[in-house]
Amino acid sequence: MTATAEPRTNSQNGEGASVVSSPEETRPARAVEQSVGTVDAADVRFLLERGRSLCTPVLREAVGRLAPPMDRVSAYHFGWTDAEGRPTEGDGGKAVRPALALLSAQAAGAPAEIGIPGGVAVELVHNFSLLHDDLMDGDEQRRHRATVWTVFGPAQAILVGDAMFALANEVLLEAADKGGATGVDAGRAVQRITLATRKLIDGQAQDLSFEHRDRVSVEECLEMEGNKTGALLAASASVGAVLAGIDDAGADALERYGYHLGLAFQAVDDLLGIWGATEVTGKPNFGDLRQRKKSLPVSAALAEGGPASVRLAELLADPEGRGHEDEEQLAVRAALIEEAGGRAWTAEEARRQHRTALAALDEVPMPAKIREQFAALAEFVVVRER
Amino acid sequence: MTATAEPRTNSQNGEGASVVSSPEETRPARAVEQSVGTVDAADVRFLLERGRSLCTPVLREAVGRLAPPMDRVSAYHFGWTDAEGRPTEGDGGKAVRPALALLSAQAAGAPAEIGIPGGVAVELVHNFSLLHDDLMDGDEQRRHRATVWTVFGPAQAILVGDAMFALANEVLLEAADKGGATGVDAGRAVQRITLATRKLIDGQAQDLSFEHRDRVSVEECLEMEGNKTGALLAASASVGAVLAGIDDAGADALERYGYHLGLAFQAVDDLLGIWGATEVTGKPNFGDLRQRKKSLPVSAALAEGGPASVRLAELLADPEGRGHEDEEQLAVRAALIEEAGGRAWTAEEARRQHRTALAALDEVPMPAKIREQFAALAEFVVVRER
Repeated sequence: MTATAEPRTNSQNGEGASVVSSPEETRPARAVEQSVGTVDAADVRFLLERGRSLCTPVLREAVGRLAPPMDRVSAYHFGWTDAEGRPTEGDGGKAVRPALALLSAQAAGAPAEIGIPGGVAVELVHNFSLLHDDLMDGDEQRRHRATVWTVFGPAQAILVGDAMFALANEVLLEAADKGGATGVDAGRAVQRITLATRKLIDGQAQDLSFEHRDRVSVEECLEMEGNKTGALLAASASVGAVLAGIDDAGADALERYGYHLGLAFQAVDDLLGIWGATEVTGKPNFGDLRQRKKSLPVSAALAEGGPASVRLAELLADPEGRGHEDEEQLAVRAALIEEAGGRAWTAEEARRQHRTALAALDEVPMPAKIREQFAALAEFVVVRER
Repeated sequence: MTATAEPRTNSQNGEGASVVSSPEETRPARAVEQSVGTVDAADVRFLLERGRSLCTPVLREAVGRLAPPMDRVSAYHFGWTDAEGRPTEGDGGKAVRPALALLSAQAAGAPAEIGIPGGVAVELVHNFSLLHDDLMDGDEQRRHRATVWTVFGPAQAILVGDAMFALANEVLLEAADKGGATGVDAGRAVQRITLATRKLIDGQAQDLSFEHRDRVSVEECLEMEGNKTGALLAASASVGAVLAGIDDAGADALERYGYHLGLAFQAVDDLLGIWGATEVTGKPNFGDLRQRKKSLPVSAALAEGGPASVRLAELLADPEGRGHEDEEQLAVRAALIEEAGGRAWTAEEARRQHRTALAALDEVPMPAKIREQFAALAEFVVVRER
């Protein structure tokens, strides 16, 4: 039950104490030392708002094509309406992916608008995966609302997810007709989004298979998280540029930025899943340990091999009381993970991935302002406490 | 619970007494008078066998890319292995769609092989829909075997279906790299398959919504069946030609052939669902009536408005004993449907759709032999008793 890059709650500016700081540090830590100055909160707000305002109308039009009741189920899922179809104030999440898609068009020297079909497509693919994953995982809440399968039944969750997947391709291919892209570039965009979607599905398959195992290697965990979170962020960060005709080397570099950004995001998410303060995350203490999630801190701690690592492995392998651990038992496990270095390793991994993401960005020639905005979005995604 | 163009069982040659014949007729009826001579059974066997032998290796290679256990689940679904992964003799169905895809490449003057990625893609989309529909509909048997969700669980049925949908696009887009098609034509093929898939999903949504209603108009029923069965047969009959570079008008005409062929198939399927002999279909007597399926004969009978029609409407609207009708009660309903003209209308509709399909074929210039083979496949699909 990885978070599929759905930030746990809204964080408006990316500032504040970072969970990737080690406990000894007294000031709010930057996730990465060579970051481009301080995060420009206004920049990030502008990029997210632009992604939302340009892509949402196209998204609503696309979803409006679906046969009833799939159109209404979609509107509920995106937070536009309540279960009875009445309009609500919800905005359907932070729209990081559309923001990246529009920015990537600008990285290729085109207007942001060229990226709109790409932003809509990645948002559709993301939400297709949420609809299906929530059902597979039995999750009853998403964005503080009842999930679609609990409100409209499993069949609608399956069907509307399928429809969103198909719509994603439909919208991208229409980019050639009315979005300003060439047919060849629209086809390249579909190919990259398709491969990302396949990885996303592979990642969910791996995540599900991990549930039946006591331990998972760090490499396996990184592969799963790269598939489940990295691949679609990679496609988000390149799709606008592909629609604008960037060459394959440029698109590959932008994908690497998004991919490693996804891994950095996920490392932070894994830290928050154990040590995120309940009052901030809105989730139970040690939530990921309660769910026996094979996250990076656990895998890293198990790989370390010292006494705390061995003791942790014994506790996790013990069938006794499995699934009924109390708060105190979970706290013991969290302490063992920390003692075996799992927390520190994961925090360092988040910094490493963040650095790698920014380095990939350096391979693509683009205006300095656009590069700064990519960096600001990266910091917003990585430096957070919830 | 429409059959999504999955013929009820194997029929090897398309001969024998046709269900579209009226009871008075003494000889095996042809579905359509102006058919091109008798069905050439050898032709049909050759086309089906060619579709299977050329497309199955590519299909197996594509499915082999999926992360475990999705590769094994797919192999089970296609009938290549049993639930433990041991090879079986199964062949995964009759492969009408691949046969059409290869033939359509030849209609555009290209070798049949150009259509292979198209044949594989439509087979993947078809099986994606079967995996999800079986789960949504709660169907426990498919092709005389336990369905995937009953063997591997609902999550695998969802996930493997998703993966097949993504693979379909992947394989089509690879046609540009290694299948001999241009990038533009591969993109056109993806666009048509995507639209067909969206219609297929719309059709399933409509079918599900019909379950909550007492009656459905003939128009609604035809629209649902056109979406659920016609759209993908339409794409199958055009995708090879699109990959081979046929113009849009030619592709549209081939799609119309496939679409109306699908409607003809479905009309026959609806007749078999009520009057197909159990010993031949392997399904219970009056199966569709037992499931309260809103099929064409029922809709047509309800629209007729005479005394039998009115009586039928009363019985269907009566909540008493719903879902527990015995054989005798179902026989009464079948007789009322026949008395109200539902059976005769549906048989005539099958003939009409078959004629319309062949007429569409006449709009596309192609070698006489290819046209005959299209006609032979159409007759094979429509003239059947199971």
